[in-house]
Amino acid sequence: MIGNTVIIVAGGRGIRMGEDVPKQFIPIGGLPVLMHTIKGFYDHNDSLEIILVLPEDQFSYWQALCRKHNFQIRHQLIKGGKTRYNSVKNGLKAASGELVAVHDGVRPFVSPETIERCFHAAKKYGAVIPVMELTDSIRKVNGNRSEMRPRYAYRSIQTPQIFRASVLRKAYELPYRSDFTDDASVVEAAGFTITLVEGNSENIKITTPFDLVVAEAFLKSR
Amino acid sequence: MIGNTVIIVAGGRGIRMGEDVPKQFIPIGGLPVLMHTIKGFYDHNDSLEIILVLPEDQFSYWQALCRKHNFQIRHQLIKGGKTRYNSVKNGLKAASGELVAVHDGVRPFVSPETIERCFHAAKKYGAVIPVMELTDSIRKVNGNRSEMRPRYAYRSIQTPQIFRASVLRKAYELPYRSDFTDDASVVEAAGFTITLVEGNSENIKITTPFDLVVAEAFLKSR
Repeated sequence: MIGNTVIIVAGGRGIRMGEDVPKQFIPIGGLPVLMHTIKGFYDHNDSLEIILVLPEDQFSYWQALCRKHNFQIRHQLIKGGKTRYNSVKNGLKAASGELVAVHDGVRPFVSPETIERCFHAAKKYGAVIPVMELTDSIRKVNGNRSEMRPRYAYRSIQTPQIFRASVLRKAYELPYRSDFTDDASVVEAAGFTITLVEGNSENIKITTPFDLVVAEAFLKSR
Repeated sequence: MIGNTVIIVAGGRGIRMGEDVPKQFIPIGGLPVLMHTIKGFYDHNDSLEIILVLPEDQFSYWQALCRKHNFQIRHQLIKGGKTRYNSVKNGLKAASGELVAVHDGVRPFVSPETIERCFHAAKKYGAVIPVMELTDSIRKVNGNRSEMRPRYAYRSIQTPQIFRASVLRKAYELPYRSDFTDDASVVEAAGFTITLVEGNSENIKITTPFDLVVAEAFLKSR
């Protein structure tokens, strides 16, 4: 039986620049963000092929973290590229699954239900992303002006974005464009249709100090 | 000296229907959401005219909560209408300030800086709303199809939305339309230009159980 793959992309910088620890390594509930993320997919399916894409200069730091936390979940370490596009492309070369999920390393709270919904729909439709309705109204900005937009007509996009491997490979043959902000945008540019399924509200991308406070609280409440 | 006004709108239902307690009354850190919200404005400026618009059948419940928590911040209680538009219109009749802020009762964590920025800019420009950049990508949905939209071109909208009283009164002479989802949309329909200032990331609208977890965490971290 051919299994499925998840490519977990963590591009956060910082170590070499003497800045703060990259977001993917910050501990929440005592464990680095990235370990929560990997564990989420492993708990969903322990035979999933897990590929972790990291900047090469963070490999040894990550490996030290794995030893420190006795982190045993098997995963393949692949070096990241200059852009997210290049990182996913590198991960994809190593992927052997029939369906390939791409997930942000800094989204540790994707629910098992979201993962299941995405894999299930991807098997059927080929290209699936989890989305949420917006809770705030939005406006479109154009220079100094802005205009109201109808919130109900928009969705915010999460990961995992899951694709038939053949679809994702075909899409990543396209040369890089700056408007490739996620995998769906690449796949769409290659002519495929994206199917939307429901995400989960806790599936936040950890980017601000406030998000870390939220993350700690969510872990405790679980 | 003419002061300013804040109209705090809380339309959440539930009591009479035997459902859960409306969001505005749920305690965070032991105190109902709405009291945190009112306190935020009072702490910013203790001479602000505070108008609270609530469904009339929640008046006695609110007054009981105020006694229970010995909540002393002076405010005027005005009955809500069938829609948010009608509620704000009712509040506006009671407002005497030169600038009028309209704020969601279930946004207890608006920062003093956001309030200050909005009042400051409203004095100059007449119609101001706080906004944030989006953290997730967005797509526009159209029936079964959806299309990528450039996230950087959009802003999510918060409150307080602050206006010169004359501007807001003029706008609220317009008959109700279903696309009046916030005050800026009414004011804009009346021909005025909306100025955007920066909001704050903690200024969330409490709508889901996860938001309550976030709220408790934020209170503790403060």
